Amino acid sequence: MWASPMGEPRFQHECLLRVRYSETDQMGTFYNSRALEWFEVGRTETLRATGVSYAEMEKRGALLPLVEAAVRYEGRARYDDLLRVACAVGFAGKASLRFDMAITHADSAAPVAAGHTLHAITDAAGRPTRAPRWLIDVLQAGKSAP
Amino acid sequence: MWASPMGEPRFQHECLLRVRYSETDQMGTFYNSRALEWFEVGRTETLRATGVSYAEMEKRGALLPLVEAAVRYEGRARYDDLLRVACAVGFAGKASLRFDMAITHADSAAPVAAGHTLHAITDAAGRPTRAPRWLIDVLQAGKSAP
Amino acid sequence: MWASPMGEPRFQHECLLRVRYSETDQMGTFYNSRALEWFEVGRTETLRATGVSYAEMEKRGALLPLVEAAVRYEGRARYDDLLRVACAVGFAGKASLRFDMAITHADSAAPVAAGHTLHAITDAAGRPTRAPRWLIDVLQAGKSAP
Amino acid sequence: MWASPMGEPRFQHECLLRVRYSETDQMGTFYNSRALEWFEVGRTETLRATGVSYAEMEKRGALLPLVEAAVRYEGRARYDDLLRVACAVGFAGKASLRFDMAITHADSAAPVAAGHTLHAITDAAGRPTRAPRWLIDVLQAGKSAP
Repeated sequence: MWASPMGEPRFQHECLLRVRYSETDQMGTFYNSRALEWFEVGRTETLRATGVSYAEMEKRGALLPLVEAAVRYEGRARYDDLLRVACAVGFAGKASLRFDMAITHADSAAPVAAGHTLHAITDAAGRPTRAPRWLIDVLQAGKSAP
Repeated sequence: MWASPMGEPRFQHECLLRVRYSETDQMGTFYNSRALEWFEVGRTETLRATGVSYAEMEKRGALLPLVEAAVRYEGRARYDDLLRVACAVGFAGKASLRFDMAITHADSAAPVAAGHTLHAITDAAGRPTRAPRWLIDVLQAGKSAP
Repeated sequence: MWASPMGEPRFQHECLLRVRYSETDQMGTFYNSRALEWFEVGRTETLRATGVSYAEMEKRGALLPLVEAAVRYEGRARYDDLLRVACAVGFAGKASLRFDMAITHADSAAPVAAGHTLHAITDAAGRPTRAPRWLIDVLQAGKSAP
Repeated sequence: MWASPMGEPRFQHECLLRVRYSETDQMGTFYNSRALEWFEVGRTETLRATGVSYAEMEKRGALLPLVEAAVRYEGRARYDDLLRVACAVGFAGKASLRFDMAITHADSAAPVAAGHTLHAITDAAGRPTRAPRWLIDVLQAGKSAP
């Protein structure tokens, strides 16, 4: 779906969501910051699909605070539109995860927004740490859920 | 400004805020849940005006989780409109605080939304507690800031 | 599930949603205004289940601006918790709709929040109007979707 | 404050805002998408300082939909922290505006987030258009407000 900047297989997953009225603005499309909230939904469902949800990761003491986010706005989405959130996750160095995101209309595949988020891997106290072994295993073993 | 359900003087305060684009929706007015976020701005500025901010209250181990909220929607407010948030706070029993709110247009005084929030008083662990002495003193001594 | 203030059968529906990280706050539970956003998700899915979605209603020129909202906060909900949003909708007079809402944990049925929203029925220009015939038919014919 | 990618003087402005409780998340800092909402506050106050607010621009039929946004997360910000939002705006080609943003703590100047947004200039119907003369004049004549 997109070129990997890391040249390695990555775990991919897709999920659907509906645009909420609370996410629109007076221009009649979604407000720009909602793209980052939808990226979060994509990350959550992608990590769940690996077998270790982010809620579980936090319980194990591994947090993923954002370091960087970028969004390209490619098309409109209105209230109640059904969107597909496609996500590919991989390591970007030993202590970072990168999620590449593409949001499209579920029916027409028309593009809505794309971009990425870069995350540090930290312990519960917020100290940067190398990826724990189970996280490496989970992402390497991963196959995209249907 | 409004009848007190508690029949006692209460601490009153007003502040101003501007409607953000992120707070509008495709109906062209503010999205309904923003009223509760503006109530929070009013609570924050009202407690600061007492001399003990809510951030300071949390540090002292007194939290104010919501028990109940009610909003009447009275008029439209558009992006960049300047709003006045008027707040009156008083005790509602020994372990609760009630904030009565009225949001109006700063220029015309046309009504936007009104309502109240009811809060438990808890310690840092979330256990309900009686109002600490300093909070009683602060609210009783309070005079509305200019 | 709750007493009807209108003494008449109403259309009922339930849906599920997951708490997003963006919906939490530093107290570790959901931020209070999110309850109104979840009520909106419940309204949207309930109207869709009647056969006429709210997006379709808007296209037909019938809007449902909020007149009043009330929420009781009954329990905590954390990031990634799966919630059940139960909704019952009925007329409250000739030109108003009322949605009664109850949000619970999907697994334990522990309560999270409950309340209602009251909506005017207006035309596309925002003028109050009586409920259109098709809306009356849709709600009266309705049976709760499974 | 930052290098201009456009090699030309740009209109600069700063404003202050306080972190709302609604903008925090369970990690105890601001939720990542709030940075884009704060960028919007910065754009709004910067355009107002030019003498033509964005609300006025919309009335004149010139919209600024987002094309691209990027954020670097540089530090934490907690509820009630007072932040400085610094903004520099200039043209990026004949039909685009670029806002460069830096958010810091108002007291310590410690960095919180920085980035930019790129905006098309469109007419009220959403068609891309060249910058209107008055907008060029306003930005070129601009001096940073105190």
